Amino acid sequence: MYGLIGQMKAAPGKRDELVAILSESTGAMPGCLSYIVAKDAADGDALWITEVWTDKDSHTASLKLPTVQAAIAKARPIIAGFGHRFETVPIGGVGLANG
Amino acid sequence: MYGLIGQMKAAPGKRDELVAILSESTGAMPGCLSYIVAKDAADGDALWITEVWTDKDSHTASLKLPTVQAAIAKARPIIAGFGHRFETVPIGGVGLANG
Repeated sequence: MYGLIGQMKAAPGKRDELVAILSESTGAMPGCLSYIVAKDAADGDALWITEVWTDKDSHTASLKLPTVQAAIAKARPIIAGFGHRFETVPIGGVGLANG
Repeated sequence: MYGLIGQMKAAPGKRDELVAILSESTGAMPGCLSYIVAKDAADGDALWITEVWTDKDSHTASLKLPTVQAAIAKARPIIAGFGHRFETVPIGGVGLANG
């Protein structure tokens, strides 16, 4: 499996809007076992996306999906930047959808 | 919802053993919507646990579960330390079990 833990910074006051856009586009992404959008509890402009995919290729392919492309275009103007980014190799646990 | 993103460092050469212990104890934790154990792709001794709970209280209560207490005791000798730790407020996404 392939995993990502990424922090994103919204433009000031735009986090809720950004979270909504990112949460909307998560349906039906082939190979996606987990994709969770969460607000950072300490930084009011930051949010986190933690992802698990069957493999890196399915993650890469997802970026070309029309729904994801549309979300990226919609979100881009209110993304102020990116923070931490960690690649992982998920092993297992609770809450892994059937890819 | 309440979330945690935490990095843990295993004693040298002990990551696989630590990952196995942490993955074993994840069954039947009330309020646990997601609990994923993953190896850090860049640091050979590091691993990540990303968690989503219905609320902070269910996370706190989980630490008292016999299975979790046993896992912590078993893991402690091969934990070298803790790295990043972020508290989050999960909003939604793919792969949230029914709490």
